[in-house]
Amino acid sequence: MEILVTNDDGIYAEGIFALSRALKKCGRVTVVAPDTERSAVGHAITLSDPLRVTEVRRNGAFFGYAASGTPADCVKLAIRSIMKKKPDLVFSGINLGANMGYNVLYSGTVSGATEGALLGIPSIAISLATFVDPDFAAAAAFARKTASAAAKNGLPPGALLNINVPALPAGKITGVSVTRQSRSLFTDRFDRRTDPHGRTYYWLTGSLNRDGAPADSDTAAVARGSISVTPLQFDLTDEKLLGNLANWKFK
Amino acid sequence: MEILVTNDDGIYAEGIFALSRALKKCGRVTVVAPDTERSAVGHAITLSDPLRVTEVRRNGAFFGYAASGTPADCVKLAIRSIMKKKPDLVFSGINLGANMGYNVLYSGTVSGATEGALLGIPSIAISLATFVDPDFAAAAAFARKTASAAAKNGLPPGALLNINVPALPAGKITGVSVTRQSRSLFTDRFDRRTDPHGRTYYWLTGSLNRDGAPADSDTAAVARGSISVTPLQFDLTDEKLLGNLANWKFK
Repeated sequence: MEILVTNDDGIYAEGIFALSRALKKCGRVTVVAPDTERSAVGHAITLSDPLRVTEVRRNGAFFGYAASGTPADCVKLAIRSIMKKKPDLVFSGINLGANMGYNVLYSGTVSGATEGALLGIPSIAISLATFVDPDFAAAAAFARKTASAAAKNGLPPGALLNINVPALPAGKITGVSVTRQSRSLFTDRFDRRTDPHGRTYYWLTGSLNRDGAPADSDTAAVARGSISVTPLQFDLTDEKLLGNLANWKFK
Repeated sequence: MEILVTNDDGIYAEGIFALSRALKKCGRVTVVAPDTERSAVGHAITLSDPLRVTEVRRNGAFFGYAASGTPADCVKLAIRSIMKKKPDLVFSGINLGANMGYNVLYSGTVSGATEGALLGIPSIAISLATFVDPDFAAAAAFARKTASAAAKNGLPPGALLNINVPALPAGKITGVSVTRQSRSLFTDRFDRRTDPHGRTYYWLTGSLNRDGAPADSDTAAVARGSISVTPLQFDLTDEKLLGNLANWKFK
């Protein structure tokens, strides 16, 4: 199995190192990842600047390719210009912090997998639900299991699995739940400050609002200590509103 | 009606000027837009840098607020920190270039409207299907009609309409079609070059692939000279795959 690995925390992050090491047990791994952290970039691509690619070593051996772009850029570059063979699977992560609910729209990690899916390759995003003291062992082990399960069961071209792993030791994880995307979202606010030159600036901050997270959702699964696996697709058409709009008159 | 206007081509673009002028006939308009072009930023937000806001004049009068962020940042800032009253409608555009099919995922214009929708406000993205010699008159007139129709028919909180206007004189536009999102996508490739210092760099380029655009889709409507109105939503759960995954064993 040919596996492309990317992330949004950058090629030097611990999470992508743990992921690529685990996936080497399932196939040939190519790492193409941003040269610096690109969190919350959404599904951005770089049109106005050229992209540069450099080879990166970690622990004394060749590790992968760092690109001066976003996760979506990295996946495009890998598939169009770096890999000799189209990958069978794209894996993005392991992200520091969960990507669930409507927040997946902001996620560079999910975006890396989205780009793979749009290019017709089964793709998987994996995130660990903590920002502090991450232990990637359980998530890395589950990534390997998912790659095996995908090879065995077959994932259709363009499928995307969004995986979130609770920040618990492997023995404390309560199971695996196949879930729906919740409607949970950050409630953001702006911290208004004045710089040393008397000018105003704003910092975006906020906290996760867990409303809109029924028991069968990603957010609820992780809250009860379960690994969450959510299949995502990208036809955003609002079927409910489609019928109503047919009666509108635009004048 | 309180209307927030943003875009991704930046506050000095002609499209946002035409849009805000047209919408002033329907209500009170507040413009908060990026200080420079932010195309193809997807649903990015700015977490690692502070945001600055400056007041911008155009044609000798106060026009709006320029922010050092993405369209999603602008909408968050406007609603949380700039506008005294929550808007009744968020409008994003008029974009230079269509935003249809899977390409909406890359769009800063659609992302501005998405942020409004996630904050519970009916939101509309509007794009003109050309990159050259734009005439925004027909699109601006249709934006005004859509705002009136939304006020009359009511749009649910969180609804998003993605409008694409063909680049034709008003008299040549064949009608208005309520459509589904197509699966059309750019087929991208990388132009590999060498800089004056002998180092390799890549430019992303490509062309629109119109496959996956049935007659009831956004792409097909614009191709036949009709204005396309596509309702979008952001629950990405893949219902088809959800059932299959329940039978997977992760081991």
